[in-house]
Amino acid sequence: MPGLVFIVSGPSGVGKSTLRKEVMSRCDNLKYSVSYTTRPPRKGEQEGVDYTFISHDTFTKMRDEGKFAEWARVHGNYYGTPIEPIVRWTEEGFDVILEIDVQGAMQVKNSFPEEVFVFIAPPSLADLEKRLRWRKTDHEDDILLRMTHAHLELDAVRDYNYLVVNERLEEAVKKFHAIILAERCRIR
Amino acid sequence: MPGLVFIVSGPSGVGKSTLRKEVMSRCDNLKYSVSYTTRPPRKGEQEGVDYTFISHDTFTKMRDEGKFAEWARVHGNYYGTPIEPIVRWTEEGFDVILEIDVQGAMQVKNSFPEEVFVFIAPPSLADLEKRLRWRKTDHEDDILLRMTHAHLELDAVRDYNYLVVNERLEEAVKKFHAIILAERCRIR
Repeated sequence: MPGLVFIVSGPSGVGKSTLRKEVMSRCDNLKYSVSYTTRPPRKGEQEGVDYTFISHDTFTKMRDEGKFAEWARVHGNYYGTPIEPIVRWTEEGFDVILEIDVQGAMQVKNSFPEEVFVFIAPPSLADLEKRLRWRKTDHEDDILLRMTHAHLELDAVRDYNYLVVNERLEEAVKKFHAIILAERCRIR
Repeated sequence: MPGLVFIVSGPSGVGKSTLRKEVMSRCDNLKYSVSYTTRPPRKGEQEGVDYTFISHDTFTKMRDEGKFAEWARVHGNYYGTPIEPIVRWTEEGFDVILEIDVQGAMQVKNSFPEEVFVFIAPPSLADLEKRLRWRKTDHEDDILLRMTHAHLELDAVRDYNYLVVNERLEEAVKKFHAIILAERCRIR
């Protein structure tokens, strides 16, 4: 039976990566599909772990060769989801997690046999702004841009299968983990 | 937001009650709707906890007054699910678990706003027979009847939302618990 593809979206700064890493440490048979991006690494981000960091030219070439399941320009940078590892892993029976923004998520709808759309939301937009400032990796302009974007993204929740509000990390991890275990029991 | 109704079915002897009791001890905001039955209590079964044990006449009267969401005759005995507590609890925001056999489960389809159908299966029919014999509460004739019935019930799996194979109790409890937590995150 082919694996499931969990597409995770949510506003920048909501804690998607932290959540995903914590769930992966507790749950077997799960792979994370690393996105490609043209944006420079943030402090602490590792090549091939958080993102595969590539040049604009390489990105354009891969895109034109149809190697991305979806790609998007977000806050002036390009992000893309490579198709090959997802196809390979799901065929091998692994479940795969993708982190994609809302516009990208809608592009992959119906790309893979068994997709599950999970939206991670902050308890409030005020809380999100606090987190972005606390992260201290973004400039003020970036923060304002991300907040504007967050408003738009929250509107997209209705297109998802699940909503996890990341108020307390441990609770959110349990919920995301439960979604994965439950989807594995779902009759299709 | 009204509560969810989890309808749990599975062959007699598969361990539905044990599973349900264990999940309820770990999960808050959950009520169990006790079924009514005309069959005599098994050893260890408590009135109002495992079943509400009533006479054939009382059962018929309640049925004719439309007080059951579903009722069925199984192995010569009558079983019924009272509507009133389910409506009251879901309105109060509780999620409710019902244990109903397959024919009953199909009768309650679309009776309540948010229904989730969970099927508990044995790892194999041979394993089920072993459990029924180990339980030592049933006569040989009963066991044969229950095994015949189990074959028919397993065919109904496709009408359910989730399948939990009860091979090891702890694993099955985790899965059932995950289904409840995940369904609470589901966007409807």
